[in-house]
Order: sequence, then structure tokens, then C-alpha cells
Amino acid sequence: MKELNKQITSDRFIGCDSDYQDADIVLFGAGFDGTTSYRPGARFGGKVIRAESYGLESYSPYLNKELTDIKVFDSGELELPFGNTEKTLLTIYKAQKQILNDNKIPVMLGGEHLVTLPAIEACSQKYPDLRLIHFDAHTDLRDEYLGEKLSHACVMRRCWEVLGDNRIYSFGVRSGTREEFEWGEKHIHLSKEYAMPTISSFLPNFTEGFDVVNSLGDNPVYLTIDIDVLDPSEFPATGTPEAGGVRFLELIQMIRYVCGANIVGADLVEYSHPYDTSGVCAATAGKVLRELLLSI
Amino acid sequence: MKELNKQITSDRFIGCDSDYQDADIVLFGAGFDGTTSYRPGARFGGKVIRAESYGLESYSPYLNKELTDIKVFDSGELELPFGNTEKTLLTIYKAQKQILNDNKIPVMLGGEHLVTLPAIEACSQKYPDLRLIHFDAHTDLRDEYLGEKLSHACVMRRCWEVLGDNRIYSFGVRSGTREEFEWGEKHIHLSKEYAMPTISSFLPNFTEGFDVVNSLGDNPVYLTIDIDVLDPSEFPATGTPEAGGVRFLELIQMIRYVCGANIVGADLVEYSHPYDTSGVCAATAGKVLRELLLSI
Amino acid sequence: MKELNKQITSDRFIGCDSDYQDADIVLFGAGFDGTTSYRPGARFGGKVIRAESYGLESYSPYLNKELTDIKVFDSGELELPFGNTEKTLLTIYKAQKQILNDNKIPVMLGGEHLVTLPAIEACSQKYPDLRLIHFDAHTDLRDEYLGEKLSHACVMRRCWEVLGDNRIYSFGVRSGTREEFEWGEKHIHLSKEYAMPTISSFLPNFTEGFDVVNSLGDNPVYLTIDIDVLDPSEFPATGTPEAGGVRFLELIQMIRYVCGANIVGADLVEYSHPYDTSGVCAATAGKVLRELLLSI
Amino acid sequence: MKELNKQITSDRFIGCDSDYQDADIVLFGAGFDGTTSYRPGARFGGKVIRAESYGLESYSPYLNKELTDIKVFDSGELELPFGNTEKTLLTIYKAQKQILNDNKIPVMLGGEHLVTLPAIEACSQKYPDLRLIHFDAHTDLRDEYLGEKLSHACVMRRCWEVLGDNRIYSFGVRSGTREEFEWGEKHIHLSKEYAMPTISSFLPNFTEGFDVVNSLGDNPVYLTIDIDVLDPSEFPATGTPEAGGVRFLELIQMIRYVCGANIVGADLVEYSHPYDTSGVCAATAGKVLRELLLSI
Amino acid sequence: MKELNKQITSDRFIGCDSDYQDADIVLFGAGFDGTTSYRPGARFGGKVIRAESYGLESYSPYLNKELTDIKVFDSGELELPFGNTEKTLLTIYKAQKQILNDNKIPVMLGGEHLVTLPAIEACSQKYPDLRLIHFDAHTDLRDEYLGEKLSHACVMRRCWEVLGDNRIYSFGVRSGTREEFEWGEKHIHLSKEYAMPTISSFLPNFTEGFDVVNSLGDNPVYLTIDIDVLDPSEFPATGTPEAGGVRFLELIQMIRYVCGANIVGADLVEYSHPYDTSGVCAATAGKVLRELLLSI
Amino acid sequence: MKELNKQITSDRFIGCDSDYQDADIVLFGAGFDGTTSYRPGARFGGKVIRAESYGLESYSPYLNKELTDIKVFDSGELELPFGNTEKTLLTIYKAQKQILNDNKIPVMLGGEHLVTLPAIEACSQKYPDLRLIHFDAHTDLRDEYLGEKLSHACVMRRCWEVLGDNRIYSFGVRSGTREEFEWGEKHIHLSKEYAMPTISSFLPNFTEGFDVVNSLGDNPVYLTIDIDVLDPSEFPATGTPEAGGVRFLELIQMIRYVCGANIVGADLVEYSHPYDTSGVCAATAGKVLRELLLSI
Repeated sequence: MKELNKQITSDRFIGCDSDYQDADIVLFGAGFDGTTSYRPGARFGGKVIRAESYGLESYSPYLNKELTDIKVFDSGELELPFGNTEKTLLTIYKAQKQILNDNKIPVMLGGEHLVTLPAIEACSQKYPDLRLIHFDAHTDLRDEYLGEKLSHACVMRRCWEVLGDNRIYSFGVRSGTREEFEWGEKHIHLSKEYAMPTISSFLPNFTEGFDVVNSLGDNPVYLTIDIDVLDPSEFPATGTPEAGGVRFLELIQMIRYVCGANIVGADLVEYSHPYDTSGVCAATAGKVLRELLLSI
Repeated sequence: MKELNKQITSDRFIGCDSDYQDADIVLFGAGFDGTTSYRPGARFGGKVIRAESYGLESYSPYLNKELTDIKVFDSGELELPFGNTEKTLLTIYKAQKQILNDNKIPVMLGGEHLVTLPAIEACSQKYPDLRLIHFDAHTDLRDEYLGEKLSHACVMRRCWEVLGDNRIYSFGVRSGTREEFEWGEKHIHLSKEYAMPTISSFLPNFTEGFDVVNSLGDNPVYLTIDIDVLDPSEFPATGTPEAGGVRFLELIQMIRYVCGANIVGADLVEYSHPYDTSGVCAATAGKVLRELLLSI
Repeated sequence: MKELNKQITSDRFIGCDSDYQDADIVLFGAGFDGTTSYRPGARFGGKVIRAESYGLESYSPYLNKELTDIKVFDSGELELPFGNTEKTLLTIYKAQKQILNDNKIPVMLGGEHLVTLPAIEACSQKYPDLRLIHFDAHTDLRDEYLGEKLSHACVMRRCWEVLGDNRIYSFGVRSGTREEFEWGEKHIHLSKEYAMPTISSFLPNFTEGFDVVNSLGDNPVYLTIDIDVLDPSEFPATGTPEAGGVRFLELIQMIRYVCGANIVGADLVEYSHPYDTSGVCAATAGKVLRELLLSI
Repeated sequence: MKELNKQITSDRFIGCDSDYQDADIVLFGAGFDGTTSYRPGARFGGKVIRAESYGLESYSPYLNKELTDIKVFDSGELELPFGNTEKTLLTIYKAQKQILNDNKIPVMLGGEHLVTLPAIEACSQKYPDLRLIHFDAHTDLRDEYLGEKLSHACVMRRCWEVLGDNRIYSFGVRSGTREEFEWGEKHIHLSKEYAMPTISSFLPNFTEGFDVVNSLGDNPVYLTIDIDVLDPSEFPATGTPEAGGVRFLELIQMIRYVCGANIVGADLVEYSHPYDTSGVCAATAGKVLRELLLSI
Repeated sequence: MKELNKQITSDRFIGCDSDYQDADIVLFGAGFDGTTSYRPGARFGGKVIRAESYGLESYSPYLNKELTDIKVFDSGELELPFGNTEKTLLTIYKAQKQILNDNKIPVMLGGEHLVTLPAIEACSQKYPDLRLIHFDAHTDLRDEYLGEKLSHACVMRRCWEVLGDNRIYSFGVRSGTREEFEWGEKHIHLSKEYAMPTISSFLPNFTEGFDVVNSLGDNPVYLTIDIDVLDPSEFPATGTPEAGGVRFLELIQMIRYVCGANIVGADLVEYSHPYDTSGVCAATAGKVLRELLLSI
Repeated sequence: MKELNKQITSDRFIGCDSDYQDADIVLFGAGFDGTTSYRPGARFGGKVIRAESYGLESYSPYLNKELTDIKVFDSGELELPFGNTEKTLLTIYKAQKQILNDNKIPVMLGGEHLVTLPAIEACSQKYPDLRLIHFDAHTDLRDEYLGEKLSHACVMRRCWEVLGDNRIYSFGVRSGTREEFEWGEKHIHLSKEYAMPTISSFLPNFTEGFDVVNSLGDNPVYLTIDIDVLDPSEFPATGTPEAGGVRFLELIQMIRYVCGANIVGADLVEYSHPYDTSGVCAATAGKVLRELLLSI
């Protein structure tokens, strides 16, 4: 029986029971959605994914691995100043920096996609050869959006300013302006499997990704997963849903493959709880996180 | 900065900024759902699809085309007399007639499927050789429904009375009475890809459609899309959802193929906003409309 | 016109209009969800599936058969004592027993999955060679759950105690503890098509099932369908949704194939109405039931 | 224990178990919402109120009476031709006529408010001195609405054409056009307690109604309750919610008082299930119906 | 800035930061809803009230007091065996017992109302003169419900068996069978302010309670608050909503008054999260709890 | 009949059809919610209130006035840079400034409450004697919130920095920290009618306001209405709902009374569409706006 005088801290992600000192991976939340242009709510992402994780198993049959067999510390949510984008990004940057300094792998739960920018800044300082693998429905390559440079719609453009040409690999993209697609073709690896499927192949898949991952060798890799890369039928609870996306099983197998590379950091962003009307997406996002943690 | 003394008319569908005079295509709404037998709400369809279209891009990577490069006038919603089916159909008929007289292509946003009938009547008067391509989960071939001839459940039967045998081509159908299927086999082209998939092919597709479209030659074609042709996992927000349907990417590629024919009119019907609990369907319907407008 | 002095009993499942005496199949509901650990609501399953069935057709194009051509009696819902698990299971056991004694095939609508246990007990007494075909997202093979042996999470383990080794065939499973998977490999036929798809086949399917069914010969078979075997994109309304599941068309074709065997009882469980936010799942569950009844 | 070979007809309203022959009151549903201009869904009203009534008690502490002590037959829902307003009204008229001819009191469950018109027509033929007591948030006194005379927005005007001046008494009204209010002052008794409360009395009540009821004497009275007379905080699930309304306890006490008059017919209309997101309104509407049946 | 290596335990109720040893009050959750007959979901009550409490202030202007000024330990949720009512009640009994033995005041978060029974059993053993003040919409005085004695619908009857005649004081009740009301008049103090308001006072209130509380003297008192005592307009998220209830300000002022007596234990039950569609009820329940803790 | 070649601009608030030049009042939207700490979504406020206003009447029986009789121009929504709080406030400031320079009365639709700050800055420059009447559930008097000075939780403190002591009059407040209440007593007029109702008066009201308004004389007054001043039973759709609030009829009568003063600007903020599950709040907010416009 539960001891009454112990407070059970049920708000860790399932199976993430390591201490900070022992941990190989540090999970933390960055619940910011201040630049979301369409449907806000990503701020609740990490919090809800943790709370609902008790409905999951800590064992993955896909990988035949257990979360309790690896060492993950769940640090909870960062405290972020609502309404101040620059100070928010700085707070995230410092957290990343510290985790990397302590030689642990940071895994961040968004929040909106702009939170990836300070993570990349911190990682690329430690790993100058950093590559960025990017799963997303959107290009996120605008130079500015409604006059702002610091916007979720510009995050890959900002990351490119940090990393330089040919360091970003985007998969699953199927929405953007003409200018974004044209710019992307010149400066990053922008997969067109989902944006321009041939008329003979109605249902595209991620196979292009295997070759890309193989080409990365031992280079350090950051993996950012905008959960809207999934088809909205499987994941409606996101800020800007785009039909014609990836299925869950494709995504987790791709994550498994990518994690064969030298992963030095990762994030999972854009789960928007207010639009999770059936509650399925919290469970699905939790499973993606479990597979990500077990694959690293 | 926005000029304060200008009212911004944000209720046009994104990128449909042409004048009526210049337009090649005229978009208008027919928000009627008076004969809906199960779950009403299609009346809000056009209005919501417009309002939510600002979350979309006007550029289609699928087609590499821009809505702002073509000429579409969005006329808004027709004013329809609630509760009077005959007068409603007459109002739609007159609108179609005028647009066709002005040598423009009408594209109608339902509303329930019965609104297609007056559109077909107007089109077939101008184009006596008219063919009708029909995407739907249902046969819609009843002779009457609960004693009524003017019902959404009878609309293809009524269109057949206008067009005659072998002029209607139905795809995606997977629900109807035995009598409807038997009647349909004799009088229209009724694809069985979804209604009777072979046991070896669990997941059917639209390939039969390519041959059909090729056979149409230069004949004038009207395209009616009942959005319930999509699988309810991708599109729950419709009056009578039927599992086992078409996926979004199949549908838009099929639309693209059909629009290689001589399209003289089109519609998109049966989006029912009250059942769009996650809001995804408004975005998906808007994308189908974008692809339709760009494909014509 | 309806005769005013007749009460129309609209709470039968569509097309199930036979008398008890004439019926070959007896449908009844067991609205129990007392051991549900995550999201309750399965208790409303049978009631809602019936009420929403008027939106379906009684004709199946998949099978080219009519419900009104077969003889099904719909007995409605059993009266069950809320909060008393043992008495509830006994009530279900007695109902099964009586139907089997009258040489009819029982088809039960859950409720949570534990209701399958008394059904198996009754069936195996009449048919000592009974086999159990099991569609589910979960192993359900725990020996106990939170100290309880009578739990939905243990139902297949309890059924194994009744039936013995190598009599249970589980398909679609993709979630469980490591111990459950290991135990399952030794004592039942546990398909890994969904739990461990190969990295080259992103999208698994049920094909393994064909061989299994062929091997059953004339042995009596009970078919239990936990509706969470479907992918949550197609069926979110269930207690513990698990991404990466089966599609509707796969399921109904598999049901059709399984029903080629000697079916002596069946059930459909775990539809949880409170999470059916768009109402699609009631229609989908009703279609699964229609196909099941027509396939037997 | 339930006898398996009996189908339990759970779709009667709780406690309404009389035969037609014995019944003093006949309850029936008129699930029509064809002229609803804003939010459709009233069609499901009667059906849902019945289905959810099992959560209520058949005993009213307010009245210290039991539904099982009085004789009510629940005839279920009329079959109405969707999309044909005139035929629908005729069907309702005939039903009313028959019940009145059999010397029983008809109580109708809407549906939208237009269903009251044929009920009044039938009643006034039997009772030429008929008075109409009307609880509603809206005047419903337009002469036509969007060109239509047969509209829910015109129903009191149409009833006035049947009944003549000074026969209609409206309570709870707080929305309408200026013309409707002006017309109403001349031709009916239009209470202004809710439309124009004095600035000193923030929270109006129904007290004016007592005097009115006392003045009716033995004249035959029909009572029509548009459930939107309730405040939307207590009853959001209606087509056109209007803040500033009546509270539940006020309404049922007023019903009790009105039923001291010579009631010859009654109805309860405009419960719109799709907007009953918390499910509370089905229970509340059921309670209003229970009090109405017990008060007559 | 947050220290990354500290896990923030955000799942305590706001301001309840005391140790067990120092605490005067011990808060714990009993998330059981196994006998709920209508709409389950009370199991999530305590968990959600805690999680959403961060949106509240710890300061009450009503009382001019701060939660951080008093000593409350939040022990989290008990682990309960789903589906086993008796073992669940025993677990709660033991927890109560221990807290009382340690001379602290237990405050329990339900769960359904049956959880009050073991709390009363434990309290009455320590305090043989125990009185029970009961806020509820329902009598809860059935001797059995569907054959069960251990049911939420019988909890006050069971408590009476523990406490004896004239020890229970029920307020806010407005629903029950005729037998329950008659039995209640003989054996407990059953306020009729809400069940039988006089026709002249449309809107009843709790004033009767003041006299009752004054009569209790120094006797030990347990306070049980079934949150459905509130009007469903203010609190829809409960298993069996009953219109015509109490307003929030009445309730918290009554709590304040009752807590002037010698409170030795308390609970707050029947918040059902799945029906809290707007999320308001979690905040309201949290405020009731804050006022309760500050008033004791 | 509608002329097809005219685009109907249905996105104005009902009855606001004046030109900018002729208008006495200019309505505009400031859809900013960047500092919202709890539940975002106020950004959609103005847009949805306009879209749903077609369900309202333009005539107010409360005031016996018509919107079409007064001159209001609806300028639509300002374009605001998501994620940049300072630039957003500047944009609002400039809009206010221009409207005031053109000698019109600005009425702003939020958005979160911080948008009131630039409005006050612009108004107080034109009217140095400006008073601020403030309806709200919250004090909004923090000096900073999570380190930020520009936060919705600090807006009244910031306005006080502009206006000085004893110029702000807050009504309906019932939530805040102890420090806020103490600070408020010294520097503003902070009504305690709702925060500390006497135990004898369960249901407080706004009567204190009459005296305050009378004391204002001819001084210029800005009226800011945080819609969460209403009770959450009447208005759940707001960021931080607080039970124990004001009723709709109280609010509109108070607005009417306040508008007897010399109103030079006003706003209505904090309607959060994503939490308007039944859609009632859009209608209620629209009615509050109608009464506000007609009262000025």
C-alpha cells in the first residue's frame, strides 16, 4: 500500500525515474507558444504528455526495449516569461547549455517550433559540425512573418543562419509558399516525397530518408520532430493541421532509423492540447516520445 | 500598417481576389441542408471554409501553382429561404444560369448534396452532352426517400432524369440499398472499387478512374465532390460518415486527373461544421477546394 | 403513416427484427466497465450502437447481403449490478448459457473486455474443443492488475485458464508489458505483425490470419473483437487508444474470412461513447457489427 | 433477472408506461427543424430526451407526485418527410386531431417551434375559445422571414391568424425586432418583465404570470414552452440562445401554476442536442417534461 | 531560474506545501467511480483538480486568508484496485484511520460518493458522537440499488447504519424516490429548501443551515460535499446533474459557516472530468476546496 | 435576390454599416493574447463575435434602440505581429490615436486585457482628466508577473502609472493576491461587493456602482469590460474563469448606467473562443457589445 506520508510525483513521464547525476538523457519542457499564428495551445504540450503517460506501457514491442532500462531524468517544465519571446529563448538556451556541459543528451518537449532555435544555437556551439534532421508538415523557411524574424514560421530559416547551407534535412513537408520551396531547394535538403508525390504513387513514404541518414556518417545530429508531420487523421491536435501526411508507424520507424546516427539532442514540438478533443493525441505523442527516448 | 478607414473583407476564400468581370471562375455558396436526414449542419459549409482559409497557403506544392495567378471571384453565400426546398433550388438554378451565361465556370460550395441538382439542370441546358463525375460514399440513387423525391438521398437519381443513361460516373461509393446498387449497374457507371474490394486487396484505390476520364474526350464535364467520399478518419465532419473511404492524397490526385477533362462546372458539398470537433476538416475542405480551383 | 397507438421500438439494432424463437443469432448487450483502468464509458456501448444504427443501411455491399434476410433477435441490454464484478459476470454467464442451450449463436455487445470471460466459460462447457480468435491492440495477458485477477487487462490470461495452451489466436496486438509478450509466445498464438513490423514494411497487415483460419478446420470458434484493434485515427472512442493499428477495411475482410470457420459465439467490446466526439465511431462500430452478423 | 426473449423497450420516456386506450395523456415527438435559421439540431430533441430520461427519477419532490401514478402513453416519434415543410405540418396536424378526437391530451416534443402551428390549428377546431400561453426568449411574431411565412420565426404570428387578437400570452421574451415588439403590444399579451426590466430590479421574474392565469377562468388553454426561455447558462443547447433568461425553478413553478388552468394540449420545443456539450440539457429538458406531465 | 536538476512536483494542490509531520490537515485522493450508475469519470477528480489548481490564487478574498499560512500536506492519490469495491473501501478506511491516529484532519477528494462510507466508519470509531453534514442534490438514501448495498445511491443509508438516527443533516437535496424522501423525514434531518420551495419564493437558499449548525455545539462534525449540490449551470461536470441547485457563493458561505463547528474530517466528491467541456468546473471545484481548507 | 457580382461583406458586426467619415464610433479588433498565462485563445475574440453576430437582432428591447439608427464604422481586425508584445501595443496605440484625432469614439474588441494599456495611453493624452471604469473578475494589479511588466495580469497597475491615484474604479473583482488587494485599497477604488460579500447577502450586486458613476460628473471616462466579470455559468469561454461572478442582466444595466457618464472610449476583452464549447458565449459577448454601442 501507498505510504500516506510520501507525495507520489506522478508528473514525470512514465519510466523516467533516474536522478539528474546518473542520467544519460535529460527531458525538459519548454511550454512556449507566443508566436503561434493560427491555433494556440502548444504551451500545454509537455505537461499533458507527462500527465497522460500513465496510460502507456514503458515497454516498446517495436524495439523490444524498456524505458526503465535506460537512464532518463525528467526535469519538468521550464518557467518561461509569457509575452517576452527573447527572454524565453534565452532561458531555453541556458538550459540546453547546462545539460550539454554536463555531457547529457537534452530532449525538449515543446511548445511551438520556435523553441528549437535556442536548442540549435547551444548544440552547434558544442558541435560545430551539427546536422539537423527535421520532420514537419511545413517548410518553416520564411525570412520573416508579419514583420517578425522570431516566429515559428521562420524557425528553419533562423536555424540555417546558425548552421549554414546543406546542413538541414527536411522530411514530410507539404505546405509552404512558392518562395519557401524555391529557397529551400537551394540551401537545404528538402524532401518532396509528400509535397509532390508522383501521380502513380498515391501514398508516398519516407524511403528517401534511409539514404540521407546513411550519408551522415558520424556527424553529430539534432532531431526535431514537429508532430504535425503526422497526418491530421492520426494527429488533429496541432496548430496548423495539414492533410496528406505521414502515418504513425512510418514516423516511429524513421525515428528508429535516424537514431542509428550520432544523436546529440532532440525535441518534439507543436502538440496542442485544446484541440485534442478525443484525447488520443496525448497518448500518441507519448508513444512517439517513448520511441524517441528508447531509440537514442 | 492597415488603414483604419478601410474595412478588410476577410470573408473571401484565400487568393480569390478577382473582380466578377475579370474572373474565369465564380465561387459561390449554397448553404442549404433542409433534406439532410441524419446530422444537419452542412448549411455552414461555405461560410466556415472561407473563414478558416486564412490558415492555408495559396500555393499548392502538389500542382506548383498559386491561387493568386488565376482569376477567381468569390461571390459569397446565396440568400436562401429556410424551409422552402423548391424556392431554394430555383435560387441556385438562377445563379448557375447567370454565371454560365457570362461564360464563366461556376464552382459551388454546399450545403447538402441536393444543391447539385439545379446546377446540373442549368449546365445541361447550356451543354446538352454534359457528363457528371461524382465522388461520394453513397449511391444517392433512391427514387424517393420518406416519400420525397427532392432529397439528398435521391440526388443522383434526379440528375439521371436530367442527363439520361450512362452519363454519370460514380467513384468511392460504399453505401446504399441493394436496389440502388442494382439500379446503378444498369443506368450509370458505378465503380465498385470501394464497395466490393477483393479480399486480396485490403486497401482499394481510385485507379479505375483514369480509364474513365480518358474515355470522356472533349465532352463537357461537371464534377461533384461529396466530401464524405473521404474516409471519416480524415474527414469526420459530414452528415453520414461511412468508414472504409478514400484518403486525401488519392482524392486530390484524382481531382487533378479529372480536371484534365473539359470541366464546365463543379461543386464541393456536405462539410458539416458542427461535427468538426478538432477543426481539422475546415482546413482539409479548404485544401480540396484550393486544389480543385487550381486544377480546373 | 405511423399508427399513433403503436409504440415504435427504435432501440433494436437495424434489421434485427426476428422473434427469439425463430432467431439463429441472439444479440444482447453487457454494458459493464467496472474494471476499466484508464477512460471509462464502455458501459454505454451497446445502447449507443443500437440508437445510431438507423443511420446505416441494412445492406452490405461488401458481402452483397441484407440483415433482413437473416434471423437475428436483439434482446437489448442485460441489467447488471454496478460495482459488483462477480455478480455481473455471473449474469452474463447465465445469459450465454441459455442462448447456447436454445441452440442459437450468442453475439454480445460490450462493455469492457472482461465480459468475454463468462462468455468463454459458457461456450467452452458446450464446446470443449473451443478456439478463441482475438482481435485487440493489447495483449490482455497480465496475471493480475493492481492486485486484481478479474480485470480487463487480464481477460486473455483468464480465458487461457479455461481453454488451455495453443487455443487462443491474437491479432493486431501492439501494446503490453515485456512479460506479457514473453508469456504469450509460449502459451498462445500471438501475431507480431503489428507489434514488430519489419523496417522495410512500414504498414503491416493481417495476412498471417489467413493461414491460421485455414488451420482451424471444423473446430468451434469464438470470435472476440476489441474495437481498439482499429487505428485510433479510425476509432478514437475507446478506453486505451493505441496508435499504429488496423484499418476498417482490413478488419471487416478479416472478420469475413474468420467467419468462414465454425463460429459458435462472438462479441464486440470497448466502444466508449464519451470519447466519440465526432460521432463517427458509433457508425463505424455499427458497421462492424453488421458485417459480423452477416458473415456468421 | 431480465428474460432474454423479451425486448425491453427502453425508448419510452421514464414512467410513461400506459396503453394508448387507457391513457389520459399522449406524448409524441415531432422531430422537425427544417426552417431553423441559425443552429439546426432540434430534430433530435424528443429522441434524446427519452433516451436520457433513465437518469431521472419518476418522482417529483416539487409536486410530491409520481409519473407512474398517472396515465401517459408515449407514442414515440412521428415519421416526417425531411425537406417538405407543408407535408410535415400536415402529418403533425393529423396526429393532434386523432388524439383530440380520442379525448386525450396531446403533449408534443419538438423539433423547432413551427411544429406548434398545426397543433394549434387542430386544438382550436375542437376548442374555439382556445388561449395560448407561450414561454419563449423570442417574439416569433414576424410576418415573414427571408420571404417565408412558414418559419419558426413567424410561428406566433401564424398562431395569431388562427386564434385572433388577445388570445396569446407571451412570457420570458427578450429578443425580437422593433416591429415585432410594436405589433405584439397591439395584438397579444406580451410580457416585458425580461425585455425591459427596470433599472432598479436587476433580476426580473415571472410574477406577472400569476394574474394572467387567474384571468383565464375555465377557458381551454394550450401551453407551448420554447425551452430557450431558460437562461443559456442553464440551457445552452438551443438554436438561438439569448442571455438574460429565466431560471429552471422559476419555469417549473410557473408551469405548475399555469397547469391550474384548463390545459387541453402542450408542447416542449427547441432542445438542440448537438449543442448539449455537457449533456446537462437533456436531463434538464426531461425534468421540465416530467413536471409538465405531472402538473397537467 | 529553475534549477534543472530538481524535479518540480507540480501535482500538489496549490499552496499545500507542508510536510506530513508538520501538517494539521492531510489531503488525499480516492479516485473510485466503480458504482456510478449514469456517467462515470469521477475517478479523475482529485488528479485534475490538483493539475488545474495552478490557475487559482492561494489567497481567498472571501476569507482574507492564504493557503500558504496554514499547514496542509497533499498526499496525492491512493492506489485503488479497479473493479473491487470492497477492497477499495478498505484501502480508504485504512488511510483515514492512519491520518486520524496521527491527530490530523483528513480531507478526501473523490471519486464517487461511496468513498464517504469508509471515511465515516473510521471517523465514528474515533469520535462516537460524530455528526454528518451533507451537501448534495440527491437523497442517496436507497437501501439498495440494482440489488447492491454498496452503491453511491445508498451511501447516506449506509452512513446512517453507522451513525444512527438524527445524526445526518442533508442540504440542497432535490432528487430522489418518494420512498427515500419519506424514509429521510423519519431518520435524518432532510432540508426541503430546494426540493419543495414555496411557490412564492422562486429561488430558495440555504438559510435553514444556520440554525442547524448553531445546534451542533461542540460535537465532532464530518462535512461531505457532493459537488452536484451546485446548480448544473455552474457545475455541469458531474455524474447525475440536477437542475434547480445551489449557487457557488451560497455554497462557500455555507462551508464557511459550517466550519465554525468542530470539523474532524471532510470530503469533496463527484467532480467528473470527462463532462467538463469548458474546463470551468476544475477551477470551481478547486476554489471550493481552497475555501474548505481555509475554513477548517 | 442577391446580385452575384457583389461580394457581401458579412464580417462586419451586425448593424455597423456606417462609413468611417460619417461614423461617431469606430469599432476595431486587437486580437492579441501573447501574455495570456493560463488558457490562450482571446486572439480570435473580435473575429468570432462579428461572425456570429448575424444570429442577433440589431434592436435592443432593453434600451428600445436600433444599431442601424446610430453611426458605427467597423474597421475589422488590426494586423498584429505575433510574438512581439511591444510592437503590438504600439500598433494599437497608433490606431487609437488616429480615431481620437478624427474626433470619434474608439471601441476595441480584444484580445487579452493588456490591449487596454495603449488605449489608455492614447486617451489620457487627449483627455488628461481621464477616469477608468473597470469591470473584471481579477485585480490585474501585480507589479510584474513571472518577471514581466507587460502582462495581462499587470494591466491595471500599468494603467495606474499612466493615470495616477484614485482614477481607476474596479467592479466585480473576486480574485487576486493579498498584496494586490492591499495595494488596490490605497491607490484605486476597488469594490468589494463580489470579493467580500457579507454572510447575510449571499448574492451580491453592483449597486455600489451607481454612486460612483454619479460622482464622476463630466469627467471623460474610458470603460474597459473584461468579460470574465460575468459568472462562468453564463460565460465559460474566457482565459481564467472565476466562479461567483456577475449576471448578464446586471452587467448590461450597469453598462447602461455608466454610459450616462462622458464616455470617450471603451473596450470588451478576454472572450476566448476555443473554450466556447456550446457557442453561447459568442452570442452573449455580441449582445454585450450591442448594448455597449447603443448605450454610448
